[in-house]
Amino acid sequence: MADKKVLIVYAHQSTGSFNAAAKDMAETVLTTQGCKVEVSDLYAMKFKASATAADITGDVKDAEHFQYGEETMLAWKEGRLSAITEEHRKLSEAEVVIFQFPMYWFTVPAIMKGWLDRVLTLGFAYTSEKRYSQGIFKDKKAMLSFTTGSHESMFSANGINGDMNVTLWPLQNGILHYCGFQVLAPQIFWAPPHITSEARKHAGGMAHTAARASGRNATYLHPFGQL
Amino acid sequence: MADKKVLIVYAHQSTGSFNAAAKDMAETVLTTQGCKVEVSDLYAMKFKASATAADITGDVKDAEHFQYGEETMLAWKEGRLSAITEEHRKLSEAEVVIFQFPMYWFTVPAIMKGWLDRVLTLGFAYTSEKRYSQGIFKDKKAMLSFTTGSHESMFSANGINGDMNVTLWPLQNGILHYCGFQVLAPQIFWAPPHITSEARKHAGGMAHTAARASGRNATYLHPFGQL
Repeated sequence: MADKKVLIVYAHQSTGSFNAAAKDMAETVLTTQGCKVEVSDLYAMKFKASATAADITGDVKDAEHFQYGEETMLAWKEGRLSAITEEHRKLSEAEVVIFQFPMYWFTVPAIMKGWLDRVLTLGFAYTSEKRYSQGIFKDKKAMLSFTTGSHESMFSANGINGDMNVTLWPLQNGILHYCGFQVLAPQIFWAPPHITSEARKHAGGMAHTAARASGRNATYLHPFGQL
Repeated sequence: MADKKVLIVYAHQSTGSFNAAAKDMAETVLTTQGCKVEVSDLYAMKFKASATAADITGDVKDAEHFQYGEETMLAWKEGRLSAITEEHRKLSEAEVVIFQFPMYWFTVPAIMKGWLDRVLTLGFAYTSEKRYSQGIFKDKKAMLSFTTGSHESMFSANGINGDMNVTLWPLQNGILHYCGFQVLAPQIFWAPPHITSEARKHAGGMAHTAARASGRNATYLHPFGQL
């Protein structure tokens, strides 16, 4: 991994969260290994989630029939995309992209869906010819890393939520692989329990492992992996 | 359907879009049948997509360890939820909920994911005891109604995108059925072509049908059902 450029797209509201610790840990470990790591901290950036005409500088072609995909493709070609260009740069340079988030309702939180909707611009991230195995990002790797609100057993083929692989299909195949990414196996923290800052400090580098191992003690189960 | 209350949660930026026409048509037809229809027009409402502490009036319990699900549940119980209460009212009263949107990246656009993340509050929409067949909304029906950017054949089991039923699983089972909704078969407008306002005017009530029938003439195929 030495010298690799890594982008972590991160979505949690709290610096004291399990997700924050997972993001920090990835950044530390990868940096130690010699990678150059950039982080897009979406809540801290107050990242706009909604796909609107505000993403385009100058007039849109036809406001009444505004089509986000076509209009942003044109704007990208003509250098009239606002706000998103820095995310484009990070993504262009990255060889590995890690998405770190609490699973909300069986997928990414809205703010991260907004990143996907707005940053994976037509032309920049895919074309009708360049997708899936011919995708524009076929030399890049991507990984989902997330917490759940439910135990692993609930996401088995016979579990109440069904197979996690099915749940992840639209994200891993429909978005990541569509753009060409080589999709790494997801890193899933099943229903992690609360960990106090103090405990995390003592646990140090083992915070993740410890939390993961004790995940089955979590007392509340719901579709928000909110920690 | 007479006298039924229907909520249409609608997400498209443009009044001249196919999705706008589908929403208007549903509203007209259902009203004619005697239903009372309410519409949440998310872009027009500038609906905030991101799940943040701003959804709560007053202090949050622990900012460093802010957990959206738990905190909004408490706020809901104590009447301290801001902004979302009107959506709660609409949803409580509705017997049928229709989600009308262009599919973005194999699921709902971020702004609609934001509605799901923020409005389906823990306590209000589900509890650990009340979900799936015991779900809080088990007497309500819900339906996804959307446009795609890809042809139907691409969403078959052997198609490049895989089976549409798998793509819809997290939405239909993980969100709607989780909250108890009886999930109606989706209304899918496969890759509708552009229709000018003039053509739509002439087509009148047949706009949908005509557009749907000619859907296979669409020339551009991508993961945005943007029309």
